[in-house]
Amino acid sequence: MTESPPRRAAIIGTGLIGGSIGLALRREGWHVSGVDRDQHRAARALHLGALDAVGADPDAEVIFIATPAGAVVEAAVEVLAFGAPDSVVTDVAGVKSPIVAALDHPRFVGGHPMAGSEQEGVDGADARLFEGATWVLTPTANTDPSAYSRVLGVVTSFGADAVAMPAARHDGMVAMVSHVPHLTAAALMTLAADAATEQAALLRLAAGGFRDMTRIAAGHPGIWPDLCLDNRLAIAATLDRLMDAVGGLRTMVTEGDRAGILAVLERAREARLNLPARVLHPDEMIEIRVPVPDRPGVLAEVTTVLGEGNVNIYDLEIAHSAEGPRGVLVLAVDATDAGAAISALSGRGYHPTLRRLAP
Amino acid sequence: MTESPPRRAAIIGTGLIGGSIGLALRREGWHVSGVDRDQHRAARALHLGALDAVGADPDAEVIFIATPAGAVVEAAVEVLAFGAPDSVVTDVAGVKSPIVAALDHPRFVGGHPMAGSEQEGVDGADARLFEGATWVLTPTANTDPSAYSRVLGVVTSFGADAVAMPAARHDGMVAMVSHVPHLTAAALMTLAADAATEQAALLRLAAGGFRDMTRIAAGHPGIWPDLCLDNRLAIAATLDRLMDAVGGLRTMVTEGDRAGILAVLERAREARLNLPARVLHPDEMIEIRVPVPDRPGVLAEVTTVLGEGNVNIYDLEIAHSAEGPRGVLVLAVDATDAGAAISALSGRGYHPTLRRLAP
Repeated sequence: MTESPPRRAAIIGTGLIGGSIGLALRREGWHVSGVDRDQHRAARALHLGALDAVGADPDAEVIFIATPAGAVVEAAVEVLAFGAPDSVVTDVAGVKSPIVAALDHPRFVGGHPMAGSEQEGVDGADARLFEGATWVLTPTANTDPSAYSRVLGVVTSFGADAVAMPAARHDGMVAMVSHVPHLTAAALMTLAADAATEQAALLRLAAGGFRDMTRIAAGHPGIWPDLCLDNRLAIAATLDRLMDAVGGLRTMVTEGDRAGILAVLERAREARLNLPARVLHPDEMIEIRVPVPDRPGVLAEVTTVLGEGNVNIYDLEIAHSAEGPRGVLVLAVDATDAGAAISALSGRGYHPTLRRLAP
Repeated sequence: MTESPPRRAAIIGTGLIGGSIGLALRREGWHVSGVDRDQHRAARALHLGALDAVGADPDAEVIFIATPAGAVVEAAVEVLAFGAPDSVVTDVAGVKSPIVAALDHPRFVGGHPMAGSEQEGVDGADARLFEGATWVLTPTANTDPSAYSRVLGVVTSFGADAVAMPAARHDGMVAMVSHVPHLTAAALMTLAADAATEQAALLRLAAGGFRDMTRIAAGHPGIWPDLCLDNRLAIAATLDRLMDAVGGLRTMVTEGDRAGILAVLERAREARLNLPARVLHPDEMIEIRVPVPDRPGVLAEVTTVLGEGNVNIYDLEIAHSAEGPRGVLVLAVDATDAGAAISALSGRGYHPTLRRLAP
């Protein structure tokens, strides 16, 4: 009796995402070949253990295309024509409609792992990059179900949370939750920086709320111009809606419509509080809010106090107040630990409040 | 030889801010009287130790008006007319031009402590609320210098960082760094919530960047309608500039102006990276960036590792990636601790990078 040979995969484009896919595949026992337009990058991926071999593999049963978005279609057409007849091909580009429209082939499944890293390039690759990430797949009416399920199985084996939706819906959603927020943060930061050149004290007045709102503007511009152009229709439509909403608020402000402003803020508050927390079993989770001074050491103190109380923190964020050096630590803990957490925190002079997370 | 009697202060309006001022004054040895439109609230402030006595004090040398903004002018006019002839009066309202215009009196100094708390009301009062906070003072050409320096001395004794500027400039600045970001976050959150009612998966795609941008929308609407109306001109002007900037980006996106988009994002990135950190001696600080999986426990692990390495963390924030479950912990530590920090983190498999903070 002999062991069955490893399943074979190939990667085209061995940067951060391609390299991470290679590491995850090899961890799962696959044989992985890879190529890159830049031969040094492919060699580096081999050196880092993301590949078993540099080069094409005509026997690969799954091919990941992780090139820049503009090169996906050409690479996929070639692989679909010259690869094994039962192979499946998927990609990782952040905008799906143009690619899916050009590649409506039974053995192609569009994909978008919603994972990134501050580090660019293959040296930032990590086999665990996709654990807990949402990985969108965009099958069409022509997609072969077995091709889809093969890609789904691989993606799930990486620890990702796969979600299927039409390409156009994906593009509208990422315009809303990713592209437009990014552009808006950049616009706000630029305005403030412009104002600060005349008013040096301005940024001293910028407290936690402003820092939160502009934080994503600190990211590498990298692929953003491509994402913006590939998704231009959805982004333009979403920007129009944002400008309408902001314009509506402007009218309420100038016309003194106190009730209207209050209604918008109340509704936004409720929606933000109901934003699903990133926890595995929210029905078993309790949210604990701890008002804290926004100063060094508080975070370590609270996490240590809870660690001593044997309370496991599943999620944590710091809600800075809009003004000034106060904030709230928002913790998600197992419901069975809630009593211990409250007791430990109250014993150190904190005033925690509880809220059951909606299932 | 007898001890000199305590200096006497009074507070009008004993809510969160008034109560915190009372606690801070008493900690500094003052005798504090206070009144509130709601007698139960004044009694509660007395019970909590924020006051020595409920009632007016004709001998108070400093009077803080901490009522809702709409009641400041009337209260101040009365106190200036009937209080001690050498007393000074200050307020805490978040918009200064209307108040300073109505009260251009030598013994009145407008003020705005940029501090708040998620807790509302006197039960959230805290003597340390103002430590490290920026406290704007808005003297005019008519302000008596000795009145100004008396208010400055008291505010500084609370641990606040006092900054003087004209009222109109203050109002323009808070429109930029506080009011408009808050309204924009509310508009974004509302749009996403609207879209999510039709597309249930939408908010599953909302990663750390979206969460950061909308976090302030989770705050209590409380005084926001009043702030918006009192500062309507500056807010409208700033919203117009924001809509211009967003509209400019929209044009670049629809016209395919890749270079223009890149230039905006590069400029915003540089400005955000240069946003001053809230540290006391930035010339002696090192910023450490640690790429981390955006999962429970990492924060506690990193802070604990550094604690074990005897490294003091002065500031900490989590930079979520725009998409997916990866992020970067950004830490400010004393430059002399940088080696120990790097060594402790590298020993646990992290890959920290260093940057000297600009002085």
